[in-house]
Amino acid sequence: MISAAINFKKGDVFATDEEKLSVAIAEAHLGLAEGGIPIGAALFDEAGRLLGSGHNLRVQEGDASMHGETSAFRNAGRQRSYRKLTLATSLSPCWYCSGLIRQFGIGRVLVGDDKNFMGGQDWVAEHGAEVHVMNDPGLIKVMADFIAANDALWNEDIGED
Amino acid sequence: MISAAINFKKGDVFATDEEKLSVAIAEAHLGLAEGGIPIGAALFDEAGRLLGSGHNLRVQEGDASMHGETSAFRNAGRQRSYRKLTLATSLSPCWYCSGLIRQFGIGRVLVGDDKNFMGGQDWVAEHGAEVHVMNDPGLIKVMADFIAANDALWNEDIGED
Repeated sequence: MISAAINFKKGDVFATDEEKLSVAIAEAHLGLAEGGIPIGAALFDEAGRLLGSGHNLRVQEGDASMHGETSAFRNAGRQRSYRKLTLATSLSPCWYCSGLIRQFGIGRVLVGDDKNFMGGQDWVAEHGAEVHVMNDPGLIKVMADFIAANDALWNEDIGED
Repeated sequence: MISAAINFKKGDVFATDEEKLSVAIAEAHLGLAEGGIPIGAALFDEAGRLLGSGHNLRVQEGDASMHGETSAFRNAGRQRSYRKLTLATSLSPCWYCSGLIRQFGIGRVLVGDDKNFMGGQDWVAEHGAEVHVMNDPGLIKVMADFIAANDALWNEDIGED
């Protein structure tokens, strides 16, 4: 089980996939502590430097457009190219976030959990992204517990009627 | 050629496809006037009521996540279902925005221009959205002129290296 990163900030280096995913996990926990949906993500450059991270903001800001991945993407600011970047996300990217990965050509994607939700990860892999599914038990339990207790909110977040 | 809507606000009714696209055109013009990329979009309910509209904010807010469509989606606030909604967009939706349409099951999409850019409009149609390509000459010229004068910015916005 991978622990959440502590006191991370932009520019910090996260060398391994486990360390990168720890930032997405920390963001998921932060979202949960705020009363939100526990999905987080983080974007890193080729050297493992954190460019930006974020979490789902549907509840906190009433912002349906801010999934974990889009929040991390926004917080990373404008980038000239995403080919050599790595996106760590706590949950398999939905079609919205998979579309983001494909359109901007994000080179590498770390998925913390594809047990609670399976999005477009195979599709982005077909279109050139390297996808590493990590399935961390701690993360899977957090999300499973959240969905069990908040099924209407969860269905709203993935557009299920 | 369809004119831009004037003095529109949430709750106003736009009955026809041309009227709906006029709001997206107005948003595109607003973005251009702000020094931004001229792409706008608007989301309407079944009765044609405007739920929210927005435009690309890459330049104005340094926000790479705010394409016209995602901006309109955000400004419409949380919605329980998108099946009966119509999204009017000034430009064919990129993969990021096509993913948004598919994930949330937006029922109908009006495309103002698929000459300057062709995104995932056929893919969203295959997955159940009704897509109406309108190709308005005025809109096509605005975008063509913008791309010709700002090719680096345009390539950045669609993730082309």
